[in-house]
Amino acid sequence: MPKTALLFFDDTHHSIDLRYFCGFEVHDPFIALRFGRKIIGVLNALEYGRALKESSFDEVIPLEEITTAAQKAGIDAPGPADHIAALARRLKIKSFEVPEDFPSHLLLRLVDMYIDLQVIEGAIFPEREIKSDAEAKAIRDGNRCASAGFSAAEAMLRAATIKGRRLVYEGKTLTSECVRTAIQTACIATGGFPADAIVAGGDQGCDPHCRGSGSLRPHDLIIIDISPRMFSSGYWGDMTRTYLRGQASDVQRDLVSAVSQAQKAALKAVKAGVFADAVHSESNRIFDELGYQTKRTTTGAVGFFHGTGHGLGLAIHEAPRIGSVHRRLRKGAVVTVEPGLYYPGLGGCRIEDVAQVTDGRPKMLSRHNYDWELQ
Amino acid sequence: MPKTALLFFDDTHHSIDLRYFCGFEVHDPFIALRFGRKIIGVLNALEYGRALKESSFDEVIPLEEITTAAQKAGIDAPGPADHIAALARRLKIKSFEVPEDFPSHLLLRLVDMYIDLQVIEGAIFPEREIKSDAEAKAIRDGNRCASAGFSAAEAMLRAATIKGRRLVYEGKTLTSECVRTAIQTACIATGGFPADAIVAGGDQGCDPHCRGSGSLRPHDLIIIDISPRMFSSGYWGDMTRTYLRGQASDVQRDLVSAVSQAQKAALKAVKAGVFADAVHSESNRIFDELGYQTKRTTTGAVGFFHGTGHGLGLAIHEAPRIGSVHRRLRKGAVVTVEPGLYYPGLGGCRIEDVAQVTDGRPKMLSRHNYDWELQ
Repeated sequence: MPKTALLFFDDTHHSIDLRYFCGFEVHDPFIALRFGRKIIGVLNALEYGRALKESSFDEVIPLEEITTAAQKAGIDAPGPADHIAALARRLKIKSFEVPEDFPSHLLLRLVDMYIDLQVIEGAIFPEREIKSDAEAKAIRDGNRCASAGFSAAEAMLRAATIKGRRLVYEGKTLTSECVRTAIQTACIATGGFPADAIVAGGDQGCDPHCRGSGSLRPHDLIIIDISPRMFSSGYWGDMTRTYLRGQASDVQRDLVSAVSQAQKAALKAVKAGVFADAVHSESNRIFDELGYQTKRTTTGAVGFFHGTGHGLGLAIHEAPRIGSVHRRLRKGAVVTVEPGLYYPGLGGCRIEDVAQVTDGRPKMLSRHNYDWELQ
Repeated sequence: MPKTALLFFDDTHHSIDLRYFCGFEVHDPFIALRFGRKIIGVLNALEYGRALKESSFDEVIPLEEITTAAQKAGIDAPGPADHIAALARRLKIKSFEVPEDFPSHLLLRLVDMYIDLQVIEGAIFPEREIKSDAEAKAIRDGNRCASAGFSAAEAMLRAATIKGRRLVYEGKTLTSECVRTAIQTACIATGGFPADAIVAGGDQGCDPHCRGSGSLRPHDLIIIDISPRMFSSGYWGDMTRTYLRGQASDVQRDLVSAVSQAQKAALKAVKAGVFADAVHSESNRIFDELGYQTKRTTTGAVGFFHGTGHGLGLAIHEAPRIGSVHRRLRKGAVVTVEPGLYYPGLGGCRIEDVAQVTDGRPKMLSRHNYDWELQ
């Protein structure tokens, strides 16, 4: 019989490891354990029945039972630390291991109570990085959902008419908000929701995480980044396309072409055993060769100043990171590949797809056309 | 000059205090400080420009500067603890205070580095509980958004026809998923999104957090709980209505009437200076008087087994809790009032509104009709 239990005290939105571990969603922090081969959840009456039906716990203990046990041990109004102590007594747990993001206050309380406890460094479930076929399918579904969003946005941009410096759609000035609503509505009908869909035109696109607001202009580059979280699986899609409604200039065409070439070069480098920073270097190499400079400015940076990509799964940003990280890509990992260039005055461009690492060419888990000059 | 800084290392989805403090949203963990009267954010190039424009930081320091400083101090690949140490040197900070949910691993790393650090017990910003007029308005907007969701659901239920044990809408069996999509679509058009909108009919409604799935049946109680988070403000709405399409039985009518009476009694008790548990007792009193029993069962509980309400703001569940808590309600706090009754076989009923605590009658921040027998 083991004596050490893995302990979580978190909600499943903050701790994706906990979500992975217990297979369902709980909004408020609760206690979960892995002890020997058993995974155990401690849930109050509000969640108990649902946990029995929906979770992957082997055992669900009503929190009220643990509260009663703690009260019998003389604690008037037991808190999480008292609950954990009562559980340790009930299950004969001698020590606990907790994840890096275990709450400090609870850690100190448990230490004060002479409970033996160790913080695990690094990933609790390194296997989360390697996606099963079912997980790859869930991510592909997320990207199908994103693709439905792009189709909605494209239809809107194409249907808009150019009136001077405005785009007009159904009699009104077309805005980022309006396109975002169309994207979100299309995504919902496809089973997911992109809470932070980016529709950023012109200089707004030069802040890679600016969601975009206000009027969209003709002849401006418009970055649309759609990352829907799927309602049923909890997995994410994440794709970006850059559009322009009207007439592109040569400089804009060169910029989009450079990003497209960088993305292709980086994607080509994605392979099991290759170092993440070698993939990232491919984006940088193309931009260097084509003369696109990256530098820091007083308001941020211009050029290419983010990583080439990140792992995708139950978390929107997870391992492995594709940036200046000298770590080998593992077979089965799923990553975004999303180089971008950003120059205020000219605008921003980013193109993002999702691929699964294999021993050969990466398996694409996203699919949508790259037409960008919409007329 | 003060020597102690308040320190966060979190993202603004997990730490609502950080969201409150810095006024914008960041998805990945970053360093934020309050030092003297200044609030300072440390953000990488990806977020820096946006932080200058959107955040309420007095100063934004590029993370890259801190990385360079840490590297100059001899650290090859600096992590968050090294960044914090470098910041302490740069800003002459002698000690840090951190919130209860500060990550344990980082706490221990900093302690190892002889950095003086204290975990603050309880609320970091107790003033978050008291809502300004602007905050109350943002919550009211959230509930307007929820109300648009109820209207969409009602229209769908009314338009459905009863065919034996099915509800049929536009030629198809009406499902929870289908009603949820209509609710979400209506909410998006009103500026918010209820990711976990509950549409739970019959016994599904007896698990208060079951989202509901599959066919909805005529003559069944259907709990619809809509909590949209508003896109622009980040504040939540949270309302519940219980419906029935078809013919209600006397037992169902009694159940709904009991919940409605309990809600009215609890709402009437909401007042500055009143104890939260006294408000909760009002719900219990009505249910007792009307003979509705609460008890634990092998699959959870039946009757009324959750709190009467919770605070609402930038978090969907925040202080004050209205349950068995002997703590006075404060003027300006915003709370949900949502008693419910749940009996498998008969179904569940919950009615939820939102009110702001005043010295007199509570100020309602939600508004929607209570018609529930839809024909």
